[in-house]
Amino acid sequence: MTDRVLVSPAELFGDGVFETVHLRPDGPWLLDQHLARLARSAGRLDLALAPDEVRARVAALPPVTAASALRIIQTRESLHVTVSPIPASVLAERRDGIRVLSAPVADPPPWSTAAAKTLSYGPNFAAKRWAQAQGGDDLLWVSPAGYALEGPTASVVWLAGDELHSVPESAGVLAGTTAAELLSRAAAVDLRGSYRMSTLSELARADAIWFASALRGLAEVTSLDGVARARSPWTPRLLALLGY
Amino acid sequence: MTDRVLVSPAELFGDGVFETVHLRPDGPWLLDQHLARLARSAGRLDLALAPDEVRARVAALPPVTAASALRIIQTRESLHVTVSPIPASVLAERRDGIRVLSAPVADPPPWSTAAAKTLSYGPNFAAKRWAQAQGGDDLLWVSPAGYALEGPTASVVWLAGDELHSVPESAGVLAGTTAAELLSRAAAVDLRGSYRMSTLSELARADAIWFASALRGLAEVTSLDGVARARSPWTPRLLALLGY
Repeated sequence: MTDRVLVSPAELFGDGVFETVHLRPDGPWLLDQHLARLARSAGRLDLALAPDEVRARVAALPPVTAASALRIIQTRESLHVTVSPIPASVLAERRDGIRVLSAPVADPPPWSTAAAKTLSYGPNFAAKRWAQAQGGDDLLWVSPAGYALEGPTASVVWLAGDELHSVPESAGVLAGTTAAELLSRAAAVDLRGSYRMSTLSELARADAIWFASALRGLAEVTSLDGVARARSPWTPRLLALLGY
Repeated sequence: MTDRVLVSPAELFGDGVFETVHLRPDGPWLLDQHLARLARSAGRLDLALAPDEVRARVAALPPVTAASALRIIQTRESLHVTVSPIPASVLAERRDGIRVLSAPVADPPPWSTAAAKTLSYGPNFAAKRWAQAQGGDDLLWVSPAGYALEGPTASVVWLAGDELHSVPESAGVLAGTTAAELLSRAAAVDLRGSYRMSTLSELARADAIWFASALRGLAEVTSLDGVARARSPWTPRLLALLGY
């Protein structure tokens, strides 16, 4: 496990991009997809990235015996590849689900890097602290037009009948790697996967809702805006489908 | 000069607060004011801060022969105090002024940490890159109601007759340390200093406009939204007043 990295002070100002990968005993899961998104994020920040160096650094990591968090961090100055344990709080969210509160967000300004996965993650942490202060676990951002967008650190995925949906990247959300994999594998469990926009009230009528991210896998939404939701039998099935 | 710091990977995610202080040969300028703001910023992020440790670390720095950038950085895990040269680009802005473009911003969400000086500075850098792509040097954020707010990394200060103004903290801007010092010293050059709101069009009619920050001191706005502005005789006087 990596515990310390040497950086220049300028690297502490959130001016960079990253990926969090579920590092499994058989290797980093969905590495190609994560590296492709890392490259897109870097492009959006006019940030230099050497994909071959990233691959070499990841390939040089020793195997893990338990699933871990692999972080690939590209600042404006250097590349850092780190491995750390998955926090117990993340595993608890996967097991027990999360209470989600919706919150309106404004349309992003033209210089927004919201579609890149950047190191300026303080507002995302602040949003989660705010949710916790309101008695929730996490937030679901809702567009000015009333559409569900994403969480501060997760994509939203929902089941309506036999349709699994997530929000298209064209909505301005970060393209979710775990969500995309789930939609692409939906047929294996006799579901159909597609991207679509959903208003908050449509979403509330879904059969099940999850927050998808690399370390949580899927965290089922057990209440939305204070309204409790029954646990779905699909949660263990879909987690198994994704190898969590 | 500090060149490298040892951090945990979690410290690279912009979850912290900082101050940039103009470190002069006779010591750090306005240190008390910067430390007071650092404490307020930390409070807004529920972040632990040990003011005595900060003071001790700053006091232990060797004196500098040329004005330098002192950064006090408090992440969620540790404190870093660094000294580095002031970039030539910053000195050029003080000398030559800056071309500023106005840009609308939305009202902040309730979990916003915009009133804290946080390490999630990527969006501020992105805003400046965007300004540069539009042929400017920096941005001036304008509220939904049309009021001038601040730049991504500076307070706005303007002169109207014998009145020096800056934007009050109640507008949701970061309380500017350099701007506050300038307003408090206005009487020494037969001006009066006060905080007030100004619409963008009122601002455009000011006798002079500056962006104020610790390293730049004052950078005169030489064009606003593409309209050139005559250089003000007050720029060298006010810079001298502040010891730049």
